Amino acid sequence: MVLTLFSYEQLHAFARSIFIKIGCNEEDATLATNVLLSADLRGIDSHGIARLSGYVRLWDAKRVNPCPSVKIIHETPSTATVDGDSGLGLVVAPKAMQIAIDKAKTVGTGWVSVQNSNHFGIAGYHSMMALEQDMIGICMTNASPLVAPTYSVERLLGTNPICVAVPAGKQPPFVADLATTTAANGKLEILQRKNGVAPLGWIQNKDGKASTDPHELKAGGALLPLGGDKEHGSHKGYALGAVVDIFSAVLSGANYGPWVPPFPAYVPMPTNMPGKGIGHFFGAMRIDAFRPADEFKQHMDQWIERFRAAKTAEGYDKVLIPGDPEREMEAERREKGIPLLGPVVDDLTYLSEKFDVALTVAAR
Amino acid sequence: MVLTLFSYEQLHAFARSIFIKIGCNEEDATLATNVLLSADLRGIDSHGIARLSGYVRLWDAKRVNPCPSVKIIHETPSTATVDGDSGLGLVVAPKAMQIAIDKAKTVGTGWVSVQNSNHFGIAGYHSMMALEQDMIGICMTNASPLVAPTYSVERLLGTNPICVAVPAGKQPPFVADLATTTAANGKLEILQRKNGVAPLGWIQNKDGKASTDPHELKAGGALLPLGGDKEHGSHKGYALGAVVDIFSAVLSGANYGPWVPPFPAYVPMPTNMPGKGIGHFFGAMRIDAFRPADEFKQHMDQWIERFRAAKTAEGYDKVLIPGDPEREMEAERREKGIPLLGPVVDDLTYLSEKFDVALTVAAR
Repeated sequence: MVLTLFSYEQLHAFARSIFIKIGCNEEDATLATNVLLSADLRGIDSHGIARLSGYVRLWDAKRVNPCPSVKIIHETPSTATVDGDSGLGLVVAPKAMQIAIDKAKTVGTGWVSVQNSNHFGIAGYHSMMALEQDMIGICMTNASPLVAPTYSVERLLGTNPICVAVPAGKQPPFVADLATTTAANGKLEILQRKNGVAPLGWIQNKDGKASTDPHELKAGGALLPLGGDKEHGSHKGYALGAVVDIFSAVLSGANYGPWVPPFPAYVPMPTNMPGKGIGHFFGAMRIDAFRPADEFKQHMDQWIERFRAAKTAEGYDKVLIPGDPEREMEAERREKGIPLLGPVVDDLTYLSEKFDVALTVAAR
Repeated sequence: MVLTLFSYEQLHAFARSIFIKIGCNEEDATLATNVLLSADLRGIDSHGIARLSGYVRLWDAKRVNPCPSVKIIHETPSTATVDGDSGLGLVVAPKAMQIAIDKAKTVGTGWVSVQNSNHFGIAGYHSMMALEQDMIGICMTNASPLVAPTYSVERLLGTNPICVAVPAGKQPPFVADLATTTAANGKLEILQRKNGVAPLGWIQNKDGKASTDPHELKAGGALLPLGGDKEHGSHKGYALGAVVDIFSAVLSGANYGPWVPPFPAYVPMPTNMPGKGIGHFFGAMRIDAFRPADEFKQHMDQWIERFRAAKTAEGYDKVLIPGDPEREMEAERREKGIPLLGPVVDDLTYLSEKFDVALTVAAR
């Protein structure tokens, strides 16, 4: 596959200009771009600039408000419910996470459930906002339904990710960012493009039978919850995805289950929607609300060092700490640039022409 | 296998007497018994009265304090760190959960990390304490190491369960209670007793190779994180188990990773332990800290009803809501009694003789 290399700065300037063209103010455009491109930096290509045209199509379809007034509609000292005013999740989410962080400063922890939002990029960005405050950051979101509960043939849950970011001392932070499915949808999209074979346990066909054909998803099939099948604990992945849905949407007043609005603007909205937009959930816990931060960090370092030094199975050279691969990818891409696939470059070229914004390629 | 049937009341009277014999006061003995037997009622037999002799052996080995003074050692309006004073987890855990609930009453949510505790029975009991207060209950605990991180041959994590209990309206509550492994250790113990074959993805041998022999666990093998192998997302199960370990122990000052004390009293304690006892983590979130409780419950009912009515795959008659099987089991066992296996009855008979406490069998 042909890859074109862009610098982070080039893509940032481009995406920011597009967000301004669709009506974001300068501050929100910067924020949305920071969030969006953190995915490309961290190697989660499915959630980065590859989605920019998708966000624009949502705006074209009037499903996104480029100038949202993000508001607290209910609160206690440690909680808030936030109305995202149909804004880009890329803008609503970091604002909601900031509310969680501010509450944690006051009473030890802060918890924010969000309604009336849209897709928010990678969960990791928002959780990691807590790190520089010596807080643990937690983030989850629901998403349009692609996943069948155990024993079902219906798609009732999104890939509903959970992210937990924990600060350490000398060691880099622990950042677990995971979809509650066996495989992220992005991995399946790659196989669809290549006409590849999916491992058993990733998907089922429309009748609920295990399948290795990645195209089954477009023929009424479904992604499987983490675990794959009942014998391997898929009811646990289903339960985790359900918790994400409940915290993000039933708690906030967003849409849940099969009623979560689709990301692709050409897909019709569900009927009889019980809430507003999609939902997120954020948490921030001040470390020193539990024990002195330096003490915690020293033990967190010991935890990380012990796990990283674990004896490996044959054929593997190290045991990973959650967040290691993404951090290494970020270091590499900040230095060498971000490679984009042909179809993504085509999408950006389309946006470049549509909005008359220059797209330049990195000097090699 | 021969099963003997006992009524809940008989087992309760017996276990409570044993807890009093090892030095618990009346109130703590009742609490510990309520927690312990909730496992038998809910069908999680590995965590119920079958463990009573194990707790007694920990007391024999002076690893458990029957009269703990459970204390808050650090707090903010929404958090507390609790020292369990080496008490039975069965007593420490509900007291810590109560602190979380009390904090939630005041500031919306309460979060409690616990050090210096012991095994606490089933996570479900503690989370479910929140339900009658119209709160969401969250509970996790670390446990002695049986699980190898992805790519490793070392056992560094326990089965580290997570439980989330959510109240509903007309529908029974949603209760997700899951070990962060493919299979709970109790399931493996059953296979060991029967010399059965474990599904691939449950365990690995001492070299990190997939195995179907349940006895491998005693020969240096390990349980696998939820997901089973990397291709099926075991790094996600590993990350979730790690989060449980960090919240329960690094945050509280308990032991973590390979240093978590073993449940069997004959297993030597680890050396160079970095903390005190085992750790738990509890959370309580008041529903009306986010939206009016009746509104939430109405939507939670709709969530449950939609998922329960999902179209099933061939061969299955319904889609389960987390908590359904345990609730049905409890209804049955409260009415018909609790069946115990021969070896468990032998254990209880041993305790009956050791402490001169009568054990009576249910009239059929």
